[in-house]
This record gives sequence, structure tokens and C-alpha cells, in this order.
Amino acid sequence: MPGKVFLVGAGPGDPELLTLKALKALRNADVVLHDDLVGAEILKLIPGTAQVQNIGKRCGRKGITQQEINALLVNYALLDLQVVRLKGGDPLVFGRVGEEMEALCTAHIEFEIVPGITAALGAAATAQIPLTHRDASSALVLITNHQAKNGKSNWPTSLPANATIVVYMPGYRYEATAQKLVQSGLDASTPCAIISHATAEDQQAFLTNIQDLSNSPHLPAPTLLVVGEVARFASDSALAQFSLFVPVSVGPEFQFENLQKQESSE
Amino acid sequence: MPGKVFLVGAGPGDPELLTLKALKALRNADVVLHDDLVGAEILKLIPGTAQVQNIGKRCGRKGITQQEINALLVNYALLDLQVVRLKGGDPLVFGRVGEEMEALCTAHIEFEIVPGITAALGAAATAQIPLTHRDASSALVLITNHQAKNGKSNWPTSLPANATIVVYMPGYRYEATAQKLVQSGLDASTPCAIISHATAEDQQAFLTNIQDLSNSPHLPAPTLLVVGEVARFASDSALAQFSLFVPVSVGPEFQFENLQKQESSE
Repeated sequence: MPGKVFLVGAGPGDPELLTLKALKALRNADVVLHDDLVGAEILKLIPGTAQVQNIGKRCGRKGITQQEINALLVNYALLDLQVVRLKGGDPLVFGRVGEEMEALCTAHIEFEIVPGITAALGAAATAQIPLTHRDASSALVLITNHQAKNGKSNWPTSLPANATIVVYMPGYRYEATAQKLVQSGLDASTPCAIISHATAEDQQAFLTNIQDLSNSPHLPAPTLLVVGEVARFASDSALAQFSLFVPVSVGPEFQFENLQKQESSE
Repeated sequence: MPGKVFLVGAGPGDPELLTLKALKALRNADVVLHDDLVGAEILKLIPGTAQVQNIGKRCGRKGITQQEINALLVNYALLDLQVVRLKGGDPLVFGRVGEEMEALCTAHIEFEIVPGITAALGAAATAQIPLTHRDASSALVLITNHQAKNGKSNWPTSLPANATIVVYMPGYRYEATAQKLVQSGLDASTPCAIISHATAEDQQAFLTNIQDLSNSPHLPAPTLLVVGEVARFASDSALAQFSLFVPVSVGPEFQFENLQKQESSE
């Protein structure tokens, strides 16, 4: 009987944001194949008996192809091993796990997906930004600025109004990103927050708006860009705990008093 | 010195999908105020010394207002207690936590947000649907069909193409929902999956497409509607483990072979 593969989300960085199920999978693992984004604190939770392999594609190492990763997963499972494929965030959100799932299906290997806290939720929690808000945002849109190798843009042609947009892997071409946001229908005065290493000890954040985005500092990757009226709510006290906090005016303060007045009829 | 309030996401249902941080907050709690959506298995994890109060607004009970909830949080914290406000899913995604955060800020009560696995990620994990996919979906959009009490619709005026749309609280007016999806720019042949009680033991799923949505069964709430080409990938084997699985053709099978061919150049 072959082993089983667990496609596990490691969450945004803080080891305490692992789920109980993810921790259980790590503790029972014979082999753990992880991405670069998974931090040392999380890797420490893996028992010494397990074989741990970094199959990340960054840091200038000779690239491992997706097909090679698929083959590793299948081959370890065929050796009757419990295999954990550990990815930062959630495996189903910009985790490119679709191809691995298909390879496992084709090889008739049992697998289970263990969801993780996707980076947008972790970043919003530490910056205390409500991603939806009855009066400021009725939708949450997760997109990526990462371009496919074939040069195809992953950027949607339009973005809904009255929504919070979280850009994964925004990169440092802030001016181009600001242009794309405006072309997608957002107002240039929309507030936004750049959040770096969300939930990790060295997290940093910078609050600005779309039209001033190009003047923002290049915080260390991985970063996230949270765009929308809700970014106004980013808590000063929360941001002050970050190692870098440069307060920038984002326009008139949202009037919580008015909100409460509207809601008091409920 | 006043106590502290933890705004905690309980995840989609499976108690093992709590984060380690959420479990720690529950174990240290003096008071836990929870929604109806939080299941009995999770409530069992709360120590017997803690006071547990259901402040959900459903089930035909006399409604507790948001202002009353805010006052409870503030007053318990002022009594120097560790307070956990426990919400299904993630507190920042359709959790209406913005108002509670503001009340705590105004009262100068320390609070911390502990993110949770939002329902979309839990549902996708059990149905094995990759929410983004290099060739089928470059964005994830979370929206709700729940209407504000003032009659204002929360539905965005347009939805991006080539995206996965997850509708929270879709309700049972499937025909109206299908119309809204088409009016927002989606093709009527787009596959979709209704997922009920995602990640809980009694989870159920039904696979269909937008134009046939009105013929779908009314699975028990809470449900989620996952709309997009990626729903085609919902695993037969994963769905077969659900207590209800009615296979419905959703059009020509996506050709994984072609995908792999395109990707092999990487």
C-alpha cells in the first residue's frame, strides 16, 4: 500500500498560525518537501526522523521544475512514506498546487489538502484592517502581480468597486502597479498598505495611497499590498508595533461616529 | 489594568483547522462569546473554568444588537478578564469585526486578531478545487449574497473574468443568483459547486453550472458557492466522500495533458 501525500499550508509566517491539522501532518511525516517561503521556526517543528528537503525555486539556485516536484511526491508515496508538501500561506491560493494534485491523481496516490492562513488574512490581522466592512468594502479580491513565464499578465481586466484588493507578490515597480490599479477602475486617492513579512517577528508596514505608492520604501519580500478604503482603518497602535512605521496621511478620517449612527437602528 | 480581547477565527468547522494561536487563546480565556456558526466540537476545547456565551443572531432568538456585543466585550475586558470573541471562519472576512475593533479602540482596550481559515479555503480543500490555477484562474474573489438590512445589495457591479468567485451565504434563491452572476459578466456554462457544512463531518457538495443552478438541491446552511473553471477540477474521489454527491456533467473535461505540455518548458 503506497503512502499518502499531504498538501499543507504553513500559513503566513508565525508558527502559531499553523493549524492543528498541519502540525499533526508534520509530526507524522517521513518526508517534508518545502518552499523557500516556509520559515525556520516552522521547520523546527518537524521531527528529527523526517527527511526535509527545500524544493524552493528562489535564491538563485538551479531551478527544480514542477514536473520534478510532481515526480518526487509520487515516488516518495510509492515508497510507502507519509509525505508533506509544505507551502507558505494556503496551498490553493497562488500555491500552484493544481499540477501536483493532478500528478497524484494520475498516479492513484491518496492525498489530502490541509488549508493554511493565506497571507492576506495574516497581514490584515496584524495591521488590524477589516478586509470587508459593511460600509467600506463588500468584497475581497486576491490577485497577483507575478507574471507568468509566457509573459501573460495575471492582472484582471477590471476590478469591482467597493472592494478590498490584496495584491500578492506586488514587487517594487510601484508606479506601474499604481497605473494598473487606476486602469482597473480604482480611484488614485484609494488608501493602501504595503506589508512585509506579515505575522513574522520582523514584519514591517507602510501606509500610503495609490497616487503616492511610487514614493514608498522597498520593504523586504515577501510583501503584500492591501488596497481599499478599509486600509484607512489600519490601526496606528498595531502599525506602531512594526519595526518600521512611517505614518502618511491618507486623506480625511473615516467617520466611525456616522457608521455607529447608521447601525444603531439594527 | 484591564483585560485583553482576542478576536479569533474558529475556521470553517473541523476543530483541527483551528490555529495553534486560536487554541491557546481559548485555553487562556475567562470568557468566550461565540457565534452560532461555531460548532460543538470546537466549544468542547474551552476549559470548564471559562464562561461561555452564545451571542449568535440566528435561530429565531431575540436579537442581540451589535452595540450590545460591543458593550459586552468592553465591559468584560474592564473587569480584567481575558475575553475571546470567537467567530466562524476568519474574523476579518464577512465577520463584521470592524465595529467591534472600533469599540475596543474607543475604550482603549487592548485587542489582538487571530486569523482563521476562511470558509472558501476549507471548502476548496475538501472538494480539492485549486482556487487559483495558472491556466484557469488568476484571481480569487470572495463576495456575499447576504443583503444589508437597509436593502442595499453587497453584490459587485462587475466581476473579473478568468477568476474564481466564492459566494458566501448564497441562500436558496439560486435562479436570482445565477442571473446576477451572468449579469456580472460570467458565462452561463461556467461550472460551480455548492458546498454545505464544509470540513465538518456532515459536509455535502453538489457540482453543477450557472445555467443549471436553479435545479440544485437546497443543501443545509451554511453553504458556499464556488464559481469558476476551477470547479471542474473538483475531485470525484473527494466528492464521493461527501454524504451527498450527485455528479452532473459540467461540459468537456479540462485537458490536463495540454497543461502539462505548456508547463514542461519551465
